[in-house]
Amino acid sequence: MKRNMAVSFVLLSMFAFITIGKTGPTTPPVRESLTAERLLQVDKDFAKASEAKGAAEAFALFLAEDAMQLPGGAHPLFGRKAIVENMGSGYLLKWEPKKAEVAKSGELGWTWGTYELHTKDADGKPTVRYGKYVNVWRKQKDGRWKVIVDLGNPSPPPNQP
Amino acid sequence: MKRNMAVSFVLLSMFAFITIGKTGPTTPPVRESLTAERLLQVDKDFAKASEAKGAAEAFALFLAEDAMQLPGGAHPLFGRKAIVENMGSGYLLKWEPKKAEVAKSGELGWTWGTYELHTKDADGKPTVRYGKYVNVWRKQKDGRWKVIVDLGNPSPPPNQP
Repeated sequence: MKRNMAVSFVLLSMFAFITIGKTGPTTPPVRESLTAERLLQVDKDFAKASEAKGAAEAFALFLAEDAMQLPGGAHPLFGRKAIVENMGSGYLLKWEPKKAEVAKSGELGWTWGTYELHTKDADGKPTVRYGKYVNVWRKQKDGRWKVIVDLGNPSPPPNQP
Repeated sequence: MKRNMAVSFVLLSMFAFITIGKTGPTTPPVRESLTAERLLQVDKDFAKASEAKGAAEAFALFLAEDAMQLPGGAHPLFGRKAIVENMGSGYLLKWEPKKAEVAKSGELGWTWGTYELHTKDADGKPTVRYGKYVNVWRKQKDGRWKVIVDLGNPSPPPNQP
C-alpha cells in the first residue's frame, strides 16, 4: 500500500510537472501576442538603427548570416556579407513596421511595413521613393531575432491612390 | 490497494499518453523537413493551378480569406476577395517554388521562388517579364496551407546578370 501510494505520488508529480510544462504552448493568445509585439519592436529597433547608422550597418547587425535578399530589378542575393556589400551608402532608408506574426513555437516570424528611400536624383535634388516590404525572421541560438528574408517593392506616395 | 493500483494505472496511462503526445514537437529534424517538403509541394500545386486555371482562380483557391498582397507599384491589398478581383485575366503567371520553411509548431511557413509573367505588349507581341516572390503561409483549421502574404518584384531574365 505504501509502495503504491509512493508510486502514485511519483506519477502524480510527473503528471503535474508535465502539465505545467505543457501550459506554455497551450495558453497561446497572450503569449503569442507578446511574442509578436516583441518581434515588431525588434523591427522598429532595426529601423531606428538604419536611421542612426545607415542601412548597410543596420543590415549587418540585424541580418542572419544565411539571410537572403530579393532586390527589385536584380537577382537574389545570398548571405549577409553579399547583401551588406551590395547596399552602398549616401541614402537614408527609413521604414515603419506595421505588423508582426510569430509561430506558436516562437522561432519563426514575419513583419511587414512601409519604407521611404531618401536619395538624390541625377541633378542632386532630394527625392523620396516609397515602398513596402516583408521580412521573415528566425530566432537565433542566442535568442536574438534576425532577418532571414528581405524583399520589397515600390508604392505610390502615401497620399496618392 | 486495488483502488491505489487503479489510480496508478490511470496516472500511468495519462503519463504515457502525454509522453506520446509530446514526442511530436520533440523529434523535429525529420518531421520539420517533411513539413517543409509538404509546403513546397503545396506551392507547386498552387503554380500548377495557375497554369491550368489562370492566376485569379488559383489565387481564389490558395489564398486565405485574410490574405494580404503587396503588389509592385501599388498600395497593399487586404483580403482574398480584393486581391482576386484585382488580378484580371489574359495573361499566364507561372512560377517555380525554390524553397519552403515551416516553424517547429507546424502552422506557419514561407516559400520563395521565381516567376514568369507571360503577357502581350501594346503591339500584341508576346513578352515575358521575370521576377521572384515570397509567400507566407498559415495552416488553416481544416489542415490546409493557405497563403497569407504575397509579394514579389522584377528580376532580369535568368541568363542576364
